[in-house]
Amino acid sequence: MKAVRVHEYHADPSLDDIPEPQLRGPLDVIVKIGGAGVCRTDLHILEGQWADLQNPDLPYVIGHENAGWVHAVGEGVTNVAVGDTVILHPQPSCGLCSACRAGRDMQCENAFFPGLSNDDGGMAEYLRTTARACVKLDPSTNPADVAALADAGITAYHAVRKALPLLHPGTTAVVQGAGGLGHIGVQCLAALSGTRVVVVDRNPDALELARQIGADETVVADGDQVRAVQELTGGGADVVFDFVAEQGAEMDGWRMTGPAGSLYVIGYGGELRIPTLEFVAGEKNVVGNIVGTYTDLAELMVLAQAGKVTLHTQQYPLDRAVDAIRDLDAGKVRGRAILVP
Amino acid sequence: MKAVRVHEYHADPSLDDIPEPQLRGPLDVIVKIGGAGVCRTDLHILEGQWADLQNPDLPYVIGHENAGWVHAVGEGVTNVAVGDTVILHPQPSCGLCSACRAGRDMQCENAFFPGLSNDDGGMAEYLRTTARACVKLDPSTNPADVAALADAGITAYHAVRKALPLLHPGTTAVVQGAGGLGHIGVQCLAALSGTRVVVVDRNPDALELARQIGADETVVADGDQVRAVQELTGGGADVVFDFVAEQGAEMDGWRMTGPAGSLYVIGYGGELRIPTLEFVAGEKNVVGNIVGTYTDLAELMVLAQAGKVTLHTQQYPLDRAVDAIRDLDAGKVRGRAILVP
Amino acid sequence: MKAVRVHEYHADPSLDDIPEPQLRGPLDVIVKIGGAGVCRTDLHILEGQWADLQNPDLPYVIGHENAGWVHAVGEGVTNVAVGDTVILHPQPSCGLCSACRAGRDMQCENAFFPGLSNDDGGMAEYLRTTARACVKLDPSTNPADVAALADAGITAYHAVRKALPLLHPGTTAVVQGAGGLGHIGVQCLAALSGTRVVVVDRNPDALELARQIGADETVVADGDQVRAVQELTGGGADVVFDFVAEQGAEMDGWRMTGPAGSLYVIGYGGELRIPTLEFVAGEKNVVGNIVGTYTDLAELMVLAQAGKVTLHTQQYPLDRAVDAIRDLDAGKVRGRAILVP
Amino acid sequence: MKAVRVHEYHADPSLDDIPEPQLRGPLDVIVKIGGAGVCRTDLHILEGQWADLQNPDLPYVIGHENAGWVHAVGEGVTNVAVGDTVILHPQPSCGLCSACRAGRDMQCENAFFPGLSNDDGGMAEYLRTTARACVKLDPSTNPADVAALADAGITAYHAVRKALPLLHPGTTAVVQGAGGLGHIGVQCLAALSGTRVVVVDRNPDALELARQIGADETVVADGDQVRAVQELTGGGADVVFDFVAEQGAEMDGWRMTGPAGSLYVIGYGGELRIPTLEFVAGEKNVVGNIVGTYTDLAELMVLAQAGKVTLHTQQYPLDRAVDAIRDLDAGKVRGRAILVP
Repeated sequence: MKAVRVHEYHADPSLDDIPEPQLRGPLDVIVKIGGAGVCRTDLHILEGQWADLQNPDLPYVIGHENAGWVHAVGEGVTNVAVGDTVILHPQPSCGLCSACRAGRDMQCENAFFPGLSNDDGGMAEYLRTTARACVKLDPSTNPADVAALADAGITAYHAVRKALPLLHPGTTAVVQGAGGLGHIGVQCLAALSGTRVVVVDRNPDALELARQIGADETVVADGDQVRAVQELTGGGADVVFDFVAEQGAEMDGWRMTGPAGSLYVIGYGGELRIPTLEFVAGEKNVVGNIVGTYTDLAELMVLAQAGKVTLHTQQYPLDRAVDAIRDLDAGKVRGRAILVP
Repeated sequence: MKAVRVHEYHADPSLDDIPEPQLRGPLDVIVKIGGAGVCRTDLHILEGQWADLQNPDLPYVIGHENAGWVHAVGEGVTNVAVGDTVILHPQPSCGLCSACRAGRDMQCENAFFPGLSNDDGGMAEYLRTTARACVKLDPSTNPADVAALADAGITAYHAVRKALPLLHPGTTAVVQGAGGLGHIGVQCLAALSGTRVVVVDRNPDALELARQIGADETVVADGDQVRAVQELTGGGADVVFDFVAEQGAEMDGWRMTGPAGSLYVIGYGGELRIPTLEFVAGEKNVVGNIVGTYTDLAELMVLAQAGKVTLHTQQYPLDRAVDAIRDLDAGKVRGRAILVP
Repeated sequence: MKAVRVHEYHADPSLDDIPEPQLRGPLDVIVKIGGAGVCRTDLHILEGQWADLQNPDLPYVIGHENAGWVHAVGEGVTNVAVGDTVILHPQPSCGLCSACRAGRDMQCENAFFPGLSNDDGGMAEYLRTTARACVKLDPSTNPADVAALADAGITAYHAVRKALPLLHPGTTAVVQGAGGLGHIGVQCLAALSGTRVVVVDRNPDALELARQIGADETVVADGDQVRAVQELTGGGADVVFDFVAEQGAEMDGWRMTGPAGSLYVIGYGGELRIPTLEFVAGEKNVVGNIVGTYTDLAELMVLAQAGKVTLHTQQYPLDRAVDAIRDLDAGKVRGRAILVP
Repeated sequence: MKAVRVHEYHADPSLDDIPEPQLRGPLDVIVKIGGAGVCRTDLHILEGQWADLQNPDLPYVIGHENAGWVHAVGEGVTNVAVGDTVILHPQPSCGLCSACRAGRDMQCENAFFPGLSNDDGGMAEYLRTTARACVKLDPSTNPADVAALADAGITAYHAVRKALPLLHPGTTAVVQGAGGLGHIGVQCLAALSGTRVVVVDRNPDALELARQIGADETVVADGDQVRAVQELTGGGADVVFDFVAEQGAEMDGWRMTGPAGSLYVIGYGGELRIPTLEFVAGEKNVVGNIVGTYTDLAELMVLAQAGKVTLHTQQYPLDRAVDAIRDLDAGKVRGRAILVP
């Protein structure tokens, strides 16, 4: 089959012809890929930033945002059958450790992450995953339309859902960064809460879009954004979702957070430097967020199928993967780039 | 009446003879003081550290950890009557703002803090507070025995109570700092949860005491404490209560916190410097904590009256207040110094 | 002033000329009434159904759903001032008992309920209430437009808000009874959750309206409604809100509730008869609901002012109160009847 | 192997020699039984009460409260290995349905219940279960000492754990029925909360034992118990755990429940008859409880291994199973009867 493989870091991946993946265990599932998202993390992989953390044997197939159709199943698989349309949680989990038993899939002690860990990903015709990663979809769903929800989508959804108990009517939530993830976060907030949503971004076009999909107020990040948010909120927001969290945005996020408020960190790259006195005097919190759970993905698909969360995508045929990657790097992709067979 | 007043910073307070406080509003309560705790914050006030933040007119009476008997009540007071034994929440709240309506007294928009804000405190024969600060006690209670729970006690209790949903059997909680507050925190954890309690302190005597009151494991903070906690917990605790939060303990606390775990900051003085990637990759949190609520104080008194939380105290007559303050500064007080009439 | 007073049960009330209410305590507030809702409970009062429970001295003024402008305040009132536009929580609470301290106003040990308990209500030109009942509104609000939210509104809102943690995307909520309260409940569900909303009512017109304001599915209560809901939900809903709870609807509600689901009882009049085995085998719950809290009312006003919850009202001048009451009894009122000055 | 099989209802089971169970699927586990509890439900099975609900093919092996050592594992099993000491959750779950994904094992759509459903149970030398039912224990644990926690234990633990957020210091919990389950419930409450525990039972000896293991107050159920609890609690408890729930105890439990309180139903057999007005006026709840989850069992084993929950057991060799069953039926078993190899 065709597959996009990294052979060395700091170089383009190549389109190789390799054998199809095979079932290895009783819970394995082989999926025929219908759509594979191209993510900024893929750029970071190519730059070698994940080399030490995940240390995959090269060459290997990238692509961790996948949807498609079930092609083969192991003998222990009972939740999906050949032919089913599925979207895939990016990190197949064991279902047996204490984190899995409590529904905290991302803390699974035995998980792998195809396309990131030492396991082939989904920029290919077929992918090996497991039963516990498969969310079954309405058969009429086009996998390419939803693939980006598999990683970008559930990351935004997960943070919003965790914060919902803090976001009753009368509160204010700030979304810092109205790009791919922030865009989904705003839609989730509008669909699931009565909070007032303030969106902060450098890009006026992104803010214009944010207003159309649920933002109540927008603030251009022109250097004065902390003061502007302080004013709009009378001293700081109840929750700040920081989808940027680098280049100073992280400290802006903290300063936009009001008394008894919480800064939800979703982006990364920067460093928070906060006197412990500020945590105490304001009784403020910083909350870490990773990719969502399987249940988050299932719930997000309900919102998507009800039309409450939508995504702009730009499709590329699989053999133009390098173009898609270059376009993403050059800022030329509107919404999410999706590779299709 | 006799009262301990600050006349200038960087100098001993003096014992003055001043008029008794009077009722000023319909919800005011005048309390005859039976016990007033001497707190490290009082030392900081005398050093001028709170001068800018609270800016009281000098001279003024210090003392924010008080219990006694109701001496006079305003016409709108219905919850206590003259003669009742009471312990006082340190920050009288308005009962009308949105924070008060939700039970979050410490975020009250209209509160004052006798002995800290520009209002006379309790190192005196009488104190003016309000109905919403009074927790009625069993008449047989000796105020001097419980006064220290009014501030040190509820601060520790508040943090522990907030964390209880995270502390089911099978989890581990680390208590960093087994001094006055940590000591109460350990007792609250033992009384209210099935978590394993690991106590970290420089002082082997404090650790010995911790073992007697509920610690399951103790670790001497000899420079190797982070590694020791990592080993005891298999990679970090579920919750770390940092009652120190300065001089490097704050970063130790973060490193002792495991995946999906939370660092509860109660002490202050230091600075946390944490890459946003660490919040994301570990899905870890930092939780700020301030003094507890009125309800926290009422609940803590239930534990105290059941003998589940006890305090070592060392009494000084009110006119020896300066000795008590000097002894505290010199590290000569075992437990809490309490001024009595 | 003019006031609608009950002189005897089983008879029309009369429009009397009586003295204006006066401030009695430091937290009292006199409100000039701008709108007073006429509620089915008023009919029950006139029928004597509340005589034993509340035992007011006759004659007394009815009306417990009020909004208007502050006319006078006691010396301890700090949250509102003369001239402010306000909506009134129906049950002024003390702010001092343990229920009030936890934000559970309706369990206040010292509350009264003007128009229901032995205290004059709001079908009059002026009403005596207290500071803790006043929610300040935007000055441009017309009290007559929002008065019905003071009782009917917060009762529906309270139940929905309590259930929100159970109503993530992928769940189904059933609303039984699409009258005044159910109508508000549907709007709250649509505004605050991603649950699928199924509305059950006898009246096809009410169902048509329900569809316009947020119902995803409707079921005519024609005797086959339990089976219809079972089918729509694959074995029962996650939450059933029963705004009827009499004449058999209460047992229908239980049967519409699925495994691990909860029946929220808001209406009353009927009796639930349930074998304990059904609670155990299905791990099902019945949850009682009373009027909402002050915070519920404040939050609901945020939704109302954002246009997310709206009400049909039909205004009557105060001196036509008896007509309004008769029209309500005869089923001639569309939405809520509101008395205006 | 030897196994206790039901051949017909309303007759003693017989000790048969049958083939050992075999692995059937990749997640199957064969356990060599070290202890199998005899439960009142076994008596009900023999009386035919479960015949319609579960409809097993006769003859079949009973016994649903099991612990032992892993004897064989399927190829997909990764959490336990041959030789491990294990206690078994009574209902092996699929790990793939939405209930399993959220940690709600008892609502699994694909579960079976050996010894109750049409699957052989544990009153035998070997049992077939699955990986998801196995909780690994310290190798030194004697399975016969802990087997009773597998069903009776987690049922009591589950109800207590669900109620913990309601049971802060200052509250009162009533335990109705101080038999096997209630006995464990009292120990869990004492270990995990600061609530005051009131135990109600007909048997003064059971109450004496309750006092030794954590009850603060006891009430003899002599007909006057509702009034006695009302008096002890000033109008009703915050939570009532009803481990009886038949023969009138269920209505007693409701009447012992105070305003805003909750009746937790764990026992069964009776019927609750409650006017909907009582749910509304008191804002009271009835909460259903079934057997606990896998996580509950794992947590309970932590308490057991720390000595915080202990059980009286009376051992019988497997071939004396009929004696054990007869003794249980005759009320001659103190604590729990356990069959051992």
